[in-house]
Amino acid sequence: MSEFSYSRTIRFHETDGAGVVYFANVLVLCHEAYEASLAFVGIDLQRFFDGQGLAYPIVHASIDFRRPLRCGQEVLIDLAPHQQQESHFEVQYHLTHDARTVGSALTRHVCIDAQRQRSPLPPEILGWIQRLRA
Amino acid sequence: MSEFSYSRTIRFHETDGAGVVYFANVLVLCHEAYEASLAFVGIDLQRFFDGQGLAYPIVHASIDFRRPLRCGQEVLIDLAPHQQQESHFEVQYHLTHDARTVGSALTRHVCIDAQRQRSPLPPEILGWIQRLRA
Amino acid sequence: MSEFSYSRTIRFHETDGAGVVYFANVLVLCHEAYEASLAFVGIDLQRFFDGQGLAYPIVHASIDFRRPLRCGQEVLIDLAPHQQQESHFEVQYHLTHDARTVGSALTRHVCIDAQRQRSPLPPEILGWIQRLRA
Amino acid sequence: MSEFSYSRTIRFHETDGAGVVYFANVLVLCHEAYEASLAFVGIDLQRFFDGQGLAYPIVHASIDFRRPLRCGQEVLIDLAPHQQQESHFEVQYHLTHDARTVGSALTRHVCIDAQRQRSPLPPEILGWIQRLRA
Repeated sequence: MSEFSYSRTIRFHETDGAGVVYFANVLVLCHEAYEASLAFVGIDLQRFFDGQGLAYPIVHASIDFRRPLRCGQEVLIDLAPHQQQESHFEVQYHLTHDARTVGSALTRHVCIDAQRQRSPLPPEILGWIQRLRA
Repeated sequence: MSEFSYSRTIRFHETDGAGVVYFANVLVLCHEAYEASLAFVGIDLQRFFDGQGLAYPIVHASIDFRRPLRCGQEVLIDLAPHQQQESHFEVQYHLTHDARTVGSALTRHVCIDAQRQRSPLPPEILGWIQRLRA
Repeated sequence: MSEFSYSRTIRFHETDGAGVVYFANVLVLCHEAYEASLAFVGIDLQRFFDGQGLAYPIVHASIDFRRPLRCGQEVLIDLAPHQQQESHFEVQYHLTHDARTVGSALTRHVCIDAQRQRSPLPPEILGWIQRLRA
Repeated sequence: MSEFSYSRTIRFHETDGAGVVYFANVLVLCHEAYEASLAFVGIDLQRFFDGQGLAYPIVHASIDFRRPLRCGQEVLIDLAPHQQQESHFEVQYHLTHDARTVGSALTRHVCIDAQRQRSPLPPEILGWIQRLRA
C-alpha cells in the first residue's frame, strides 16, 4: 500500500459567492495533488509540463461532491494512479476533511508526443505508477 | 428544439504553461454558459447564486476533451438542461470551435434549502428547463 | 479621442466568499480588455502571447477599488495605452457599472526578445497605441 | 523583528501560455500569505472572510515584477502589516525564489461594518499588526 497524500488549506480565492469552494476548483486541488505526487518521485515539474516533448493531456475528468469545503479548512487528498492502456493512465482522488469524505474524482490522461500522436507511457511515468499505486 | 448557445473568446489567463486552456477552466466555461442560460430566461443571477434560500450545488460533473483550446479562439457552447428526479437536474454541454467538437460535459445539480435539505425543483427552474431543453 | 471599451458580465467563479468579485480578478478583467483591444486592431492573440519572439510581460500593476462588483453585473472597461520609453508601454483602465466608477487600474509592460533582453516597441504595438490612445 | 513568511510551490494552473505565472496570480499568492498570517495569530478564516460583521476589503493594490515564476518553483513571501489610519491597514509583501527577489507588492485594506461604513480597526486586527510587523 503506497498511496500518496497531499494536504492543503483552502484559500479565499477558491471560494465563490455561495461561501464554499467553487466546483471546478476542487479539480484544481486534485491536479495539485497529481503535481505533488510527480515531484515526490523526483520528476521535474517545469520540464514535465512545458508542452515540449511528451505531454499527458487530460482526456476525461469526473468528480463527485459530497460535502462543501470552506475557507481555512484543511483538505486531504489521497491519490492513486493506474495504467489503462499502453498510452493511457488514470488517477483516482479521494478528498477528506476532518476524516469525512468531501468528494472523489478521476482524471484520465493520454501520452502524446510533440506531433500530438499517442505514445507508450515512458519509464518515468511507469515508475511513478509503480511507486504510488495502492 | 430550443437549445441555448453561448459564445466566448478564450482569454490568456485560461491557458496554462502547455499553451492550451487548463482542463478545469473548460468546466468554468460550461458554468458560464449555464449562468448565461439562467439570465436568458430572466433569472436574477445575484440572487440565484447568493447562497441564501434555495441553492443548486453541483453534486457531479464530468468532461471529455477532444481538442485543445488556445488563446483568442472562439468557443461555442450548446447547453441543454433536463430534470432528473424531483430535486435534481442535469445540464449537458457540447463545445465546438470552428464547427469542430472540442469536448462535452455534464453537471448534475441538487436543489437544497437554507438547511441544506433536498427540496423539489421550484417553478423558475422547471420553466428554465422547459424553455431550453432540446 | 479613440479609447477602446470592453463590456463583460461578471461570472460566479469570479466572486469570493464575501459575495463580490475577488480583488485580483478585477485585474484579470483588465487584462481581458487589453487582449480584446489587441484583437480589435488585428493582432493575432495566439501568436502574441505564445512566449516565442517578442513578449510584453507586465513589470508593474496597480489598482484602486471604489465599489464591489457582483455576479451577473455588467462591467464596462475603458482602456488607453501610452508609450513610456523606447521599450515600455502603459495601459490605463477605468471600470464602470451602471455609469458609476468601480475602480481604475494600470499595467506597465516591457518589450523583451526571446533572450529576455529589452527591445524597442515594434510597429504593431506602436500602431495599436496610435489607434487606441485617448 | 517579527515578519511572517509563507512558502508555496507554484502550481501548473497558475502558469499561462507564456510558461510563467500569470501576473494577477502573484497577487493571489500574496493574499494567501495574508490569510496564513491571520491564521497564524489564531484568527478563524471562515468567519473572518464570510462577508458578515466587519470586513476588510482591499481598496488599493500594487505589484512590481522582477523575475518570472515557473511551475514547480518554491516562492517565499515575507509579509508585514502596518496600520495606516484609524480604519485602514496596509500589507507589504516581498517575494523571493532561491534567495533572489521575484517581486514586491502592497495591499491596502479598509475596515467596514455590515452597512459598509468605515469602522476603527478592532483588537484582533491591531493584535495581528502588533505581532507581525517588522
